Amino acid sequence: MTIDIITIFPDFFLPFIETSMIRKARMHGFVTINIHNLRDYSTNKHHKVDDTPYGGGAGMVMTYQPFKDAIDHLRRTDTKVIFMSPQGQVFSQKTANTLALSAHIILLCGHYEGIDARVLDLVDAELSIGDYVLTGGEIPAMVVADAIIRLVPGVLHEDSAADDSLQNGLLKYPQYTKPETIDGKPVPEVLLSGNHQEIAKWRMIESVKATLNKRPDLLDKGTFDEDIHKLIKALKDDLQDTK
Amino acid sequence: MTIDIITIFPDFFLPFIETSMIRKARMHGFVTINIHNLRDYSTNKHHKVDDTPYGGGAGMVMTYQPFKDAIDHLRRTDTKVIFMSPQGQVFSQKTANTLALSAHIILLCGHYEGIDARVLDLVDAELSIGDYVLTGGEIPAMVVADAIIRLVPGVLHEDSAADDSLQNGLLKYPQYTKPETIDGKPVPEVLLSGNHQEIAKWRMIESVKATLNKRPDLLDKGTFDEDIHKLIKALKDDLQDTK
Repeated sequence: MTIDIITIFPDFFLPFIETSMIRKARMHGFVTINIHNLRDYSTNKHHKVDDTPYGGGAGMVMTYQPFKDAIDHLRRTDTKVIFMSPQGQVFSQKTANTLALSAHIILLCGHYEGIDARVLDLVDAELSIGDYVLTGGEIPAMVVADAIIRLVPGVLHEDSAADDSLQNGLLKYPQYTKPETIDGKPVPEVLLSGNHQEIAKWRMIESVKATLNKRPDLLDKGTFDEDIHKLIKALKDDLQDTK
Repeated sequence: MTIDIITIFPDFFLPFIETSMIRKARMHGFVTINIHNLRDYSTNKHHKVDDTPYGGGAGMVMTYQPFKDAIDHLRRTDTKVIFMSPQGQVFSQKTANTLALSAHIILLCGHYEGIDARVLDLVDAELSIGDYVLTGGEIPAMVVADAIIRLVPGVLHEDSAADDSLQNGLLKYPQYTKPETIDGKPVPEVLLSGNHQEIAKWRMIESVKATLNKRPDLLDKGTFDEDIHKLIKALKDDLQDTK
């Protein structure tokens, strides 16, 4: 997979591509990430990439030409061009799973103050990472790249990604590591039992409980196995009884 | 406002604090950002901060002790400790508006694979930036810091932040800048009219239209002025008629 990122802050991405999982994925050839300076594509002699908005208003608006030329230069037949934008569809694990199958992705970062709306004619998707306002598309582009790359086969141990929060539509069960007791707080006994079946059962229950407590909306959205369905119903009933 | 970020990848944040709006906000004294290496708080002689999970399973789990000591060291009476976690409540502009009033925020970044659940006893909130899985809490911490800092009075021109997408519960109207026509695409005529009242009206209609087309769910969540309510209803009816 190749990811091209187009930005006015190319240096912003240097630690991102040199850290942790992304670094390993690049070193092992699972992904190529190229960072492009949008200004290099500006035909303006001062490499300007923004101008005042038609109709007035606060802030500057990024111009069409540099994005158009950058996309034309980088696009292949199998490319998905994605604009990071607060106006986009909200990015989710489902979108990440789909995008992880792509061969080539271009991520466009704009000022969140505004880009010329005509740029949208050039893109395949407009993605937002959530309902909050950020300064630019750079951090959102990192979010999308990170979420996708860790799903590329080979990058992580398979059981690690499959076991993630949200990958099965539920929050993850609580985890514990050494020491057994700290600040008077013990590890739940079942985890010390060595009984793998009991541990798996406890984790499934805790996973459903966590989701019920913290993100009940996820239970309405997901499609679950018959077993998990029964568990959700039983725990919901318990919750009702204690009220 | 002071933001302390605790992470095992302190260098990851260097360009973040040196770029664009964040840099200016720091230079002008609106915000102080301190980046702390979690390993510096580990009492383990190899500065280890993770260990294998009790009960088995893939991956490593971050230990309680370094987080506990880091929080104890940094906490003041007015501190909000926030753990970035896929299990958290979903961060929104509303949360950003509230957090922007805080004097001191500590952002804890963990591996998303797991942290010892007992760390949660030490935090005021567990925040997720969206329903997708990332490698760690570093990018989410940048999201939260960026969204908050731009709301601190003085950091942006006031009308700029007020005019943002989502700040009023609607997506932003389309923006245009020079040239008037490019690749055969003209700027909407009203924006060239100089009639500010007509432009404001057009922008409001386009803002509601964009929200109806791309994120109709936002219209159910928001509370709007009487004028905008009427507009939403009229445009919804139009949409029905064309179906």
